[in-house]
Amino acid sequence: MCRLYIALLHYPVYNRRKEVVATAVTNLDIHDIARAAMTFGVGRFYIVTPVEEQRELVRRIADHWRKGFGSRYNPSRKEAFRTLAVVPSLEEAQGDIAGETNMRPVTVATGASLNGPFLRFSEMRERIRSREEPHLILFGTGWGLADEVARTADHRLEPVRGACEYNHLSVRSAAAIVLDRIAGRE
Amino acid sequence: MCRLYIALLHYPVYNRRKEVVATAVTNLDIHDIARAAMTFGVGRFYIVTPVEEQRELVRRIADHWRKGFGSRYNPSRKEAFRTLAVVPSLEEAQGDIAGETNMRPVTVATGASLNGPFLRFSEMRERIRSREEPHLILFGTGWGLADEVARTADHRLEPVRGACEYNHLSVRSAAAIVLDRIAGRE
Repeated sequence: MCRLYIALLHYPVYNRRKEVVATAVTNLDIHDIARAAMTFGVGRFYIVTPVEEQRELVRRIADHWRKGFGSRYNPSRKEAFRTLAVVPSLEEAQGDIAGETNMRPVTVATGASLNGPFLRFSEMRERIRSREEPHLILFGTGWGLADEVARTADHRLEPVRGACEYNHLSVRSAAAIVLDRIAGRE
Repeated sequence: MCRLYIALLHYPVYNRRKEVVATAVTNLDIHDIARAAMTFGVGRFYIVTPVEEQRELVRRIADHWRKGFGSRYNPSRKEAFRTLAVVPSLEEAQGDIAGETNMRPVTVATGASLNGPFLRFSEMRERIRSREEPHLILFGTGWGLADEVARTADHRLEPVRGACEYNHLSVRSAAAIVLDRIAGRE
């Protein structure tokens, strides 16, 4: 399970009018997804944003929980924040993983409105159990990953489906469910 | 699936020193869990708090998305907020469901540090598919549901487990995963 990585992209993603934008970092995304990453054995959780001020903000939040008052107030949060890394681009995250593992990571795009063919959850689960290559799962903020990212990823994961047609989970909920489906145990 | 209900309790729950307290409502809990509830076919999502000012706050937020600017800005959020109800106590939520279904709801407590015996996810999934009685799943804010709630619930759901020993999901992530495990489809 140590070969599983995730990235939360703030660019390039869509806004509600399907324009490609850079979104602002949401504090609770960092907390919730870092905690889920730690729970499901993710090697590193990359926050991706090209905006330097936003990266600085994430570093300040992370330092509060890793070294500042937060580390004493809530040691389990300190532990979760250990998985966190902040990078300006997806390429940088890929390079970081390649440097660590000596292998190019396999990228897997996620999203509620992706087009197939899809990698099924059961296949993804099997992959990270049996294959040596690192896998990097991509989550989009805003209204989802821009097509250029979804299309050029090595795979597209099948969308999470519930009981109904309604399918508008937050990226925090979607990330938790995806990680549980591929790395949870019952 | 229309017989599945969930409640997010802000009292009685623990704080970090295991004292029983009433927690404050977190705006993103409402959004994330309402969206997950809608996705997984939950009949109603109860926000439970004995503090009238907090209930008024939730109603104001809900009105913004159901009737105010938010309803035009984001129609899918309007839809999610339809599932929301605000009540002062768990008993009130139970009474509401009983009034609607003419049956006492079966209560199921959740939490990372509950004591067994547990209802397994597969059993819970089977129950809501095959049984007529409504089921009400209880989620705790803060450091989790007070023992008096967990013990007196009809069942305790097995805790969500990841790959590792670390187990500190946010209630938003836990609710998403629990709903997916019992009502998701692959």
